[in-house]
Amino acid sequence: MSQDEASPGVLMAAEIAEQPAIWRRVLAGRDAIAQVASTLATRQPRFVLLVARGTSDHAALYAKYLVEIVLGLPAGLASPSTLTAYGARPDLRDVLMIGVSQSGGSPDLVESLRVGREQGAQTLAVTNNAESPLARAAELHLDVLAGPERAVAATKSYTAQLLTLYLLLDAARGGGGAAASRLPDWGEQLVGHGDRLVDAAQRYRFAQRLVVTGRGYSYSTAREAALKLMETSYLSAQAFSGADLLHGPMAMVDPQVPVLAVMAHGVGGHALRQVLPRLRDARADVFCVGSADAVAEATLGVALPDGVPEEVSPILEILPFQQLALHLAVARGENPDAPRGLRKVTETL
Amino acid sequence: MSQDEASPGVLMAAEIAEQPAIWRRVLAGRDAIAQVASTLATRQPRFVLLVARGTSDHAALYAKYLVEIVLGLPAGLASPSTLTAYGARPDLRDVLMIGVSQSGGSPDLVESLRVGREQGAQTLAVTNNAESPLARAAELHLDVLAGPERAVAATKSYTAQLLTLYLLLDAARGGGGAAASRLPDWGEQLVGHGDRLVDAAQRYRFAQRLVVTGRGYSYSTAREAALKLMETSYLSAQAFSGADLLHGPMAMVDPQVPVLAVMAHGVGGHALRQVLPRLRDARADVFCVGSADAVAEATLGVALPDGVPEEVSPILEILPFQQLALHLAVARGENPDAPRGLRKVTETL
Repeated sequence: MSQDEASPGVLMAAEIAEQPAIWRRVLAGRDAIAQVASTLATRQPRFVLLVARGTSDHAALYAKYLVEIVLGLPAGLASPSTLTAYGARPDLRDVLMIGVSQSGGSPDLVESLRVGREQGAQTLAVTNNAESPLARAAELHLDVLAGPERAVAATKSYTAQLLTLYLLLDAARGGGGAAASRLPDWGEQLVGHGDRLVDAAQRYRFAQRLVVTGRGYSYSTAREAALKLMETSYLSAQAFSGADLLHGPMAMVDPQVPVLAVMAHGVGGHALRQVLPRLRDARADVFCVGSADAVAEATLGVALPDGVPEEVSPILEILPFQQLALHLAVARGENPDAPRGLRKVTETL
Repeated sequence: MSQDEASPGVLMAAEIAEQPAIWRRVLAGRDAIAQVASTLATRQPRFVLLVARGTSDHAALYAKYLVEIVLGLPAGLASPSTLTAYGARPDLRDVLMIGVSQSGGSPDLVESLRVGREQGAQTLAVTNNAESPLARAAELHLDVLAGPERAVAATKSYTAQLLTLYLLLDAARGGGGAAASRLPDWGEQLVGHGDRLVDAAQRYRFAQRLVVTGRGYSYSTAREAALKLMETSYLSAQAFSGADLLHGPMAMVDPQVPVLAVMAHGVGGHALRQVLPRLRDARADVFCVGSADAVAEATLGVALPDGVPEEVSPILEILPFQQLALHLAVARGENPDAPRGLRKVTETL
């Protein structure tokens, strides 16, 4: 029996804990990121297309909010199949196309960036492997420096992607990434208090389905939290923006369906708090990751450090959810390091 | 007791059945739609942004595939909160912005189109109410002609939106909407055989959660089918593109989680059929709406008529799912005409 089998979740736990150190490494490399940002600026893109799948698609969603709000450019998440399976050849001049992938090995993303480049887009790959096919297919590449990821459920590569994308897009508007400088310290605080998620996991031991919600920048956190819970604990976890929740899915929320809510400081968390009365009407059990006062209104939760700028908050918000997914899987007798039915590199065309 | 209370689902059943007649009405108005398409062409848009929520967001997703594949333009689904809550003011010159809403009354969509217009976008509202605030906020308007919708769960307005958007985007490339001409006949066939969904509903009587999957154009069907099931039957229904399913969510599929798959004729259905062996490995129970040969490989299903062009297939594909949602809700003792916790017009800012 290898050590991995002896201790289910040991790989995932180690990779969760490693994140603040990786963020220090990414921050130390910010000059190289700023260099790429200035190369992007020379082409004056007018529209940004993001291409990704799975966890990386949630990093792309975070980047989409940054592009729209911080850069003031319209953006879209590309549907890879239109360029691959359907063979669409859109006019992509003045478009910046960013492919995000941990492995850089998914054939449909490689093909999407190849076609994008051919159709006139400026292409950038953001991956955890500088030698990957995606890195080679794109004109520009950024390495997220997370190091080899051994657990099947991505954790450290996700926050490394978020931070790299933040530094890139902040540099593109002329910023120096100041909002991110305290992230490693804050991350160490959060990781150090991970034991409280062991208790929270016991609470959801027998839950079959749950809802995760967040708005604005934190919507990406809700999506990624839901995916982690699904892939490690095999329950149905559905993410909705606070606004979409009211369009239909609210009907399925009752006291048997726990709600996990991201309500950080800032515009998104403030907007989501308007949904709380509706959740209370439905007598929902609410777990909150967010500001101390939002947590105080929930059934239970984890408070984020004070003073986290909203733009970088998703990099921290996901940590308690990663820990919850880990502990919940272990509590349910599963091994989150090797979920059933999954492979590390997913090949679809 | 009113008749509505006496017969749960009577409103939803009537609106499902009404769809083919509405499609004839929309088809009869295609000249007006072509007129709008030619006005759009004068501005030569280079990017298309779609803004919508809930069911209408699934119509927008369908339109996104059409824009990318048929018009050859990059497209994105806008995140309304960036323009409203975050106050972003992106440069939207050369952008066509399409707002889709049944009621035309959601304040965040109205505000998004208002800001979009101010920022230089050409704006079009697609609604079921020509007098609505959204219709007035946009430069151009298309009425989907579905007539007043009384059931809270949208059905007829959804397919009317799809057909209107298809005719618009087909006209924009110079087409005459020929692929849509047989839809009313095909729709009558499908609606007429709705009784077989009563049996299928019995099968899922005790399901707590299920997965819906589709690829390409049919991904919008999967999303909308999941929403209908959630809002009428209060179960957790999660939609994934066939490709995203393999990135994580596959882990939660087991014999206790029914899979509803859309595998119509064409590229998307063909691509999804490659996922079938993985579903079989997981011993999943598969309900299929699609081509006769795809249905033959599933546990049960509903075959679509032969010869439906893939571009318009989603307009038909959703019918069996609407009927399934209706009958499942009734089988579970619920009233799908008035789901708990929902209102017809959703107000978020």
